[in-house]
Amino acid sequence: MKRRQFVTTAGLAAAGAGIAMPAIAQSAPQITWRLASSFSTSLETLWGGALALAEAVRQQSDGRFILEVHPAGVIAGALDVFDAVRDGRADCAQTALHYFWGKEPALVFATGAPFGMNARGQNAFFRQGGGNDLINEVLADHQLMALPAGNTGCQMGGWFRNEIKSAADVRGLKFRVSGFAGKILQSLGAEPAAMGRGQIAAALAEGTLDAASWISPLDDERLGLVKAAPYYYYPGFFQPNMAVHLMAGADKWNQLPPAYQAILRSACDSAGADMQSRYDAANPAALRRLAEAGAKLRAYPGDVADALWQGAEKAYRETAAADAKFKRVHDAHMDFRNDQYLWWQVAEYPHDNYLIRQRARG
Amino acid sequence: MKRRQFVTTAGLAAAGAGIAMPAIAQSAPQITWRLASSFSTSLETLWGGALALAEAVRQQSDGRFILEVHPAGVIAGALDVFDAVRDGRADCAQTALHYFWGKEPALVFATGAPFGMNARGQNAFFRQGGGNDLINEVLADHQLMALPAGNTGCQMGGWFRNEIKSAADVRGLKFRVSGFAGKILQSLGAEPAAMGRGQIAAALAEGTLDAASWISPLDDERLGLVKAAPYYYYPGFFQPNMAVHLMAGADKWNQLPPAYQAILRSACDSAGADMQSRYDAANPAALRRLAEAGAKLRAYPGDVADALWQGAEKAYRETAAADAKFKRVHDAHMDFRNDQYLWWQVAEYPHDNYLIRQRARG
Repeated sequence: MKRRQFVTTAGLAAAGAGIAMPAIAQSAPQITWRLASSFSTSLETLWGGALALAEAVRQQSDGRFILEVHPAGVIAGALDVFDAVRDGRADCAQTALHYFWGKEPALVFATGAPFGMNARGQNAFFRQGGGNDLINEVLADHQLMALPAGNTGCQMGGWFRNEIKSAADVRGLKFRVSGFAGKILQSLGAEPAAMGRGQIAAALAEGTLDAASWISPLDDERLGLVKAAPYYYYPGFFQPNMAVHLMAGADKWNQLPPAYQAILRSACDSAGADMQSRYDAANPAALRRLAEAGAKLRAYPGDVADALWQGAEKAYRETAAADAKFKRVHDAHMDFRNDQYLWWQVAEYPHDNYLIRQRARG
Repeated sequence: MKRRQFVTTAGLAAAGAGIAMPAIAQSAPQITWRLASSFSTSLETLWGGALALAEAVRQQSDGRFILEVHPAGVIAGALDVFDAVRDGRADCAQTALHYFWGKEPALVFATGAPFGMNARGQNAFFRQGGGNDLINEVLADHQLMALPAGNTGCQMGGWFRNEIKSAADVRGLKFRVSGFAGKILQSLGAEPAAMGRGQIAAALAEGTLDAASWISPLDDERLGLVKAAPYYYYPGFFQPNMAVHLMAGADKWNQLPPAYQAILRSACDSAGADMQSRYDAANPAALRRLAEAGAKLRAYPGDVADALWQGAEKAYRETAAADAKFKRVHDAHMDFRNDQYLWWQVAEYPHDNYLIRQRARG
């Protein structure tokens, strides 16, 4: 608590220092926020989102509002940033909120839930479907708030040592996944394993892992999994989008001048659009390089997809029965998803379908 | 020219007024820009994008940078805003740049070209594929610049009095479309007709029009076309996305303090994300209401789609042969599109496919 109080007081002092200055400066005090990212610098697009955000805030505020960004492991580890913001070691964090579903199961829906919406639907849910408010109600119980600040788009399904021909082949697999997806895999008889980035390639090579899901071609290429586990499955049913958030202490946010709050909101939108565009622009070439390196692209067989769907439904049902906040956000999220796909199937999807077929025709 | 010089001088005077103020204020002068929108207030989501943009800029600048927004017809008509910004009647415009393809054919690719990319691909093209730079090189020849500031997403194919069973049924149809799409329809033997919003419903009822393309369910519903032309075709091959831009005089832009340029960039991204989310959130319910009112949803038959594709290829080829700037942007745009769909077919599309099929299963 002491550390928290210190940070709060320091924030007030910085704002108070403007009192003797002209009116125009009172609303533009010099403020520095320490940002703890859950992403390492090797995740150039996710970490790049923190850099882009800080740069946008700096430029818009004419250098008066500074986000001092630190990659995972400097202020806090990837999974420690929630606590780091709560206890004042950081003023804010850039993270994937579903990392903290163990603390708050409802945060699964902040980040693109299994069999949820694509990234555009997720953004519409956040902004127009009450999603941002719902997530912030959950975070308010922890004296936190968050703004969406990027997305990876739909991820890949993961790397497998052996080909998967049916749901039976998934049984017994030691499968590296993160978070809530583990519950789904368990209902297919697989053994989910939590494992950090650095260990995955060796574990696949040694056979202590049979499969591993990471992100998408751009980031997956860096891990070098193609030799040990060449079967590269799609799509990423566990992660049809992965929204990234800027999370801050609620008191820190409330103390910001309104103009800085507006700058932070806009900068998050801008850095978010930038992140998605970087993934979209880089993934095609990364996919080509992976195929040349020996990746064998495979669609999940229909019965595997159906078994995963049923596993997800079961995991949602069980978690909702135990947690009212989870149920509330789940229901809103899935109602919105169902509406999105009513419209998506009429305009976006048939156009994409035609363009994909034309591409195949050459 | 006099009017232009007047506005330019006024802008300089406003900036100069800060010289006697403290350093902090010199970089934050009071500036007001008159914005001429191509959209009327009845287009609540497109026009709403101008309001959202102005509000974001006002908040971020603490009220020092103001966009004074005017709907179509106040400062300039919908198709007159290009000239209005050039001759200084407006400082900037909110518009769909393809309206001006007659002046600069390459602007077709600023707004989501026929058989181009979906909205996410278009954004990646703008930001990572050199698209923004290419469009701004074209606009620089007219002393203009532009920033993307929204999108409708994929539009609908249009309303038809009679069902279309094959490409032969398109021949001879009087078809309301805007811009470059008219060239495509001509190669199918249809008669493209330019027509403003207010005349379309009556023309369809009287039979002076056989078909009309407008936007998407949310906006189309307001026009009340379902009675006269109940066959509602999809997808909008002419408009797989429709990007909206904020366009400004190059000198106006260059005179802005760097912080205001940064604020305008971010605010355009933010208003853009907001616009897309409003369309996505509102279109499902609008589609349902249209179906209840008697709209008969139909996919374009395969041979109509192919004939439109061939018509588009022909129109692109002919225009590229006559205009080097068009060719340059066309080639970059279509190369980027082809790469986008290589990746899209692997992750996004199969996930959307599965979700759409699950929805149909109930």
